[in-house]
Amino acid sequence: MPVWVNGAPQDHLSVSDRGLAYGDGLFETVRVSNGKPTLAGYHWSRLQRSCERLGIVLDVAQLLEEVDAFLSGNQASAGVLKVIVTRGSGGRGYNPEGCLSSSRILSLHSLPVRQRDPGLFGARVKACQTCLGRSSLAGLKHLNRLEQVLARSEWQGGAYDEGLLCDYEGILVEGTMSNLFIVTHQGDLVTPDLSFSGVAGVCREFIIEFARSRGIIVKEQLVSDLDVAEIFLCNSVNGVWPVVEYEGRVWEIGPITTLIRDCVLEELNA
Amino acid sequence: MPVWVNGAPQDHLSVSDRGLAYGDGLFETVRVSNGKPTLAGYHWSRLQRSCERLGIVLDVAQLLEEVDAFLSGNQASAGVLKVIVTRGSGGRGYNPEGCLSSSRILSLHSLPVRQRDPGLFGARVKACQTCLGRSSLAGLKHLNRLEQVLARSEWQGGAYDEGLLCDYEGILVEGTMSNLFIVTHQGDLVTPDLSFSGVAGVCREFIIEFARSRGIIVKEQLVSDLDVAEIFLCNSVNGVWPVVEYEGRVWEIGPITTLIRDCVLEELNA
Repeated sequence: MPVWVNGAPQDHLSVSDRGLAYGDGLFETVRVSNGKPTLAGYHWSRLQRSCERLGIVLDVAQLLEEVDAFLSGNQASAGVLKVIVTRGSGGRGYNPEGCLSSSRILSLHSLPVRQRDPGLFGARVKACQTCLGRSSLAGLKHLNRLEQVLARSEWQGGAYDEGLLCDYEGILVEGTMSNLFIVTHQGDLVTPDLSFSGVAGVCREFIIEFARSRGIIVKEQLVSDLDVAEIFLCNSVNGVWPVVEYEGRVWEIGPITTLIRDCVLEELNA
Repeated sequence: MPVWVNGAPQDHLSVSDRGLAYGDGLFETVRVSNGKPTLAGYHWSRLQRSCERLGIVLDVAQLLEEVDAFLSGNQASAGVLKVIVTRGSGGRGYNPEGCLSSSRILSLHSLPVRQRDPGLFGARVKACQTCLGRSSLAGLKHLNRLEQVLARSEWQGGAYDEGLLCDYEGILVEGTMSNLFIVTHQGDLVTPDLSFSGVAGVCREFIIEFARSRGIIVKEQLVSDLDVAEIFLCNSVNGVWPVVEYEGRVWEIGPITTLIRDCVLEELNA
């Protein structure tokens, strides 16, 4: 696995890095196609916004130069680029004062391989017991991800394709690694409001913009009722997965899901 | 700063370690006195319980041998030993299956130096804006600590000695790096119930046992009212800090706080 740290090949990081000590950092998981990052504008602007929110100093132009050099240096055609940005090294203790030099970690991975493609055949989804707590950092893709690790531990191997998580009020928020959309019987698109918990995925953002450009009404609001026409999940690596099974209920792969899935796939293979 | 990784001197860790990727691990911050870890039984049993909760495989006997060798090899007399245990290296993705080899990181730090000792003169404490979310991992000292980093960022340098955090219902939980106790006008000790958020500190555990052994009634319950006789904070490095100022209110350093502070200090200097 090719890895760069701060612009040079290196597969290790100081143990004094606050990314390790406190999960004090952010990441992006970017699908690479034809040697280029896809949904790139969405990824880099979320990363920049998130760094500002956490007060992490990041030279985005420098990062993007490194990403270009990393991908071309490794002759990456298709795969997954993971970008981690941490607050860098600091003393013991939570106080981040004086941490002025963030760490940038790039790694390149194969695209996930599955026996049965949930994008094509639909995803079998589990209701996770793990709940998502409320956080003032809702929306950010930060490095505090134990909730997701616990939720993903609730099933082994390929028993399910994904699991859905609720908050402590029982309101649906997202999948362990994906965002949730439903299509109402009126043909509107609804995705959970992520003001209080969850990760605001870049594929979710792309889909909201695309659907609106096609005249579909999109609402970000509470989702608690699944008496709906279609359900799908999305992320920036796998694209759209229509949900065909969830807790004993079944759905067919509907026309709006298909439209959006194919558009996302085109973007991810561009 | 002396550092060992997995039993040998090493100051870096693989970037594929899940401690960095997801905060998928735990830590203990142990005061060292006369070359020995203090409150050791409390620290190691919490670490073991927490590893079991997260499903992290840890050979505690091996870790304790390493701690002994690390401290004697570095001729550590007084200081702070930080122990991090992560789930180890794994592939990209939240699924922890197949991570069977945890990482053990030991580092030795100086005791914190302060111009004015809050243990002796009392702590000036701020009410933090950052709220603590609910978590099924409440109580554990895991590596997902962005809430604490954000809260500690709310003041600069020594403007305050510590900050107190509430949950989203406005119920007091703990300090950024300490647990909270109040002494009621009846002379009972009350500390917030940490079933839903917060870190169950080992110094807190020691104090509960000590107070009960002296016939003091100790309750773990919701704390929302600060019309109380005494307040103090504690952790396993600094011991007990009497609170003398909090949001415009002042307290004197009372007799029960003094009793407990001196007993904890004796334990930490043993």
